[in-house]
Amino acid sequence: MRLTGTDRPIEGDPVRSLPSDPRFETDAGEPALRWGILAPGGIAAAFVRSLRHTVQRPVAVGSRSLDRAQRFAAEHGIESAYGSYRELVEDPEVDVVYVAAPHSEHRELGLLAIAAGKHVLIEKPMATTAEDVRLLAAAAAEAGVFLMEAMWSRYLPQAAVLRAVLREGLLGDPVTVVADHGQLIPFDPNGRLYRPELAGGAVLDLGVYAVQFDSMVFGAPRALTAVGTGTGTGVDATATLVLDHGEGRQSTLTTSLAAASPSRAFIAGSQARIETGELFYTPTTLTLSGPELDEPVRWVDDSGRDGHLGLSWQATALASFVASGLRESPLHTLAETAEIAGTMAEAIRQIAPA
Amino acid sequence: MRLTGTDRPIEGDPVRSLPSDPRFETDAGEPALRWGILAPGGIAAAFVRSLRHTVQRPVAVGSRSLDRAQRFAAEHGIESAYGSYRELVEDPEVDVVYVAAPHSEHRELGLLAIAAGKHVLIEKPMATTAEDVRLLAAAAAEAGVFLMEAMWSRYLPQAAVLRAVLREGLLGDPVTVVADHGQLIPFDPNGRLYRPELAGGAVLDLGVYAVQFDSMVFGAPRALTAVGTGTGTGVDATATLVLDHGEGRQSTLTTSLAAASPSRAFIAGSQARIETGELFYTPTTLTLSGPELDEPVRWVDDSGRDGHLGLSWQATALASFVASGLRESPLHTLAETAEIAGTMAEAIRQIAPA
Repeated sequence: MRLTGTDRPIEGDPVRSLPSDPRFETDAGEPALRWGILAPGGIAAAFVRSLRHTVQRPVAVGSRSLDRAQRFAAEHGIESAYGSYRELVEDPEVDVVYVAAPHSEHRELGLLAIAAGKHVLIEKPMATTAEDVRLLAAAAAEAGVFLMEAMWSRYLPQAAVLRAVLREGLLGDPVTVVADHGQLIPFDPNGRLYRPELAGGAVLDLGVYAVQFDSMVFGAPRALTAVGTGTGTGVDATATLVLDHGEGRQSTLTTSLAAASPSRAFIAGSQARIETGELFYTPTTLTLSGPELDEPVRWVDDSGRDGHLGLSWQATALASFVASGLRESPLHTLAETAEIAGTMAEAIRQIAPA
Repeated sequence: MRLTGTDRPIEGDPVRSLPSDPRFETDAGEPALRWGILAPGGIAAAFVRSLRHTVQRPVAVGSRSLDRAQRFAAEHGIESAYGSYRELVEDPEVDVVYVAAPHSEHRELGLLAIAAGKHVLIEKPMATTAEDVRLLAAAAAEAGVFLMEAMWSRYLPQAAVLRAVLREGLLGDPVTVVADHGQLIPFDPNGRLYRPELAGGAVLDLGVYAVQFDSMVFGAPRALTAVGTGTGTGVDATATLVLDHGEGRQSTLTTSLAAASPSRAFIAGSQARIETGELFYTPTTLTLSGPELDEPVRWVDDSGRDGHLGLSWQATALASFVASGLRESPLHTLAETAEIAGTMAEAIRQIAPA
């Protein structure tokens, strides 16, 4: 078990540390891409604010409402504002389009940006079915552009540490993942997450983080059992997914729109386990525990980019990948994105939310 | 939301505190009962050590092996040692018998102690089916003796705080419980927890803590879905229980013999949530979080009885209940104990471990 000689200090003990991952070093030297923001809602604002910590440049914003686009542009110091998505994706000053519209529009708007020859970052979930992710992937390959889901957790510094811990076998053989993501989204039949036609529900919006966390460790499940409750508006309010990964490996993922939970995740293995702090999908802490360790080893994100400022890492990763000539994320491939969409679709099918 | 004027200080903020429960004050003034220890294994040793923190007195120990009983008695300063369980339960110096034998023997040995007219504390699970718990309860009622499961978590100081938090409505309406208990018990086909004839498996030995925690909040589930894996020896290695409590309330409990997990639990409600620290079934911390709180409110067990020393609280609670003329625990009734046994039996039936 290698716990020294690496580059991330831990709390309380200057000698030991958790390993890091060279791929985490993607935040210096990558080119400054020019970003077009498609749909100026809350997550778009958080993303643009996060870019101030990088060399990435938001240069244009497009909305169905020109007024809304202009207000967003003024607030965030963005040069161009458009009253249609088509004008945005066709702006020759834009290198990459960030699709931040509701889930239900991701496929069509992704295809629109791809058709315009732009690289594309699509908010999670990229699409609501595996088939739609594959459709987007095929279109991007055909157009020769880069396509990636905005699964920002995969690009946080802690994700690099987690990958290194797994790669170096510090946990022994991983046995189980338990991950939870619950938020209290007050009931509103007109709210985005309560509307089936906007692809609302807990699984697609919140549970997706837990599914991708599990997928990072074990890949796609061999079998899935999902149990949940409905909101009364046709989407899932609460869900538990039990994933069979074969050879006795079983993971459990919980998600809810009905209550705010600590939203932790852990991976337990035959030799040790690693646990995140609260809100595991944001920049947080990691704690490695096991019988071979006198005390738990702790890693703390000291990047200074807390909460949604952590959205910045996916942008710098994308710029780095594009500069390397890649067409998809090596840390979250399009095939894996499709598998995760398939797992979520099957979970929702089993829950059959009313 | 009442967060002041109560008696347990919290960390970092001397003004606010979590409410306590007057029933926690059961560790002074209760009579000193004379305890007979039935089956001197590891948990019996931990229990006897914990009694040094109380006025309770272990006075006799019984084993099928007189030599083993005598060694245990010598090690722990116990007056009488018997080479049979019958001699132990018939010792007139014994007020209460603590049944610490393997799960599979709880019913018969509990009935033996009851038939001898002794009060009885039976290690968890009291029995492996609801019917057997009811059989023990009926026998105890008939004999006029006190009967209780050694579900020590229910008697820890933190349990009193949890009950008060629930009673005072600090969480709003509870929506979900998520609880986990995993330990790595190295595979041994002759080990107690791997043997079906000794009622081994993760659910009965470890998961029981999670089931009782959920039951404390919501009572028995309306429906249960259990998914798990087998050890290959006929008992469950890993299990996830999803409990439907109606009105959208859903709980998820995970347990495993195959990996050591943080073993936390939380209750999330419509207004706030409360989370335990690691190893929730032992003396630990509680953290109350919610939008109406600027910062989380933390409660720390400062009793000085860490880990298995916390076994002492169930003994003082029992002595207090007996002194009050009760015949069962008001904090964990025999009816509830039977319901929990029924939930576990149904979970194991669904898993059908191979």
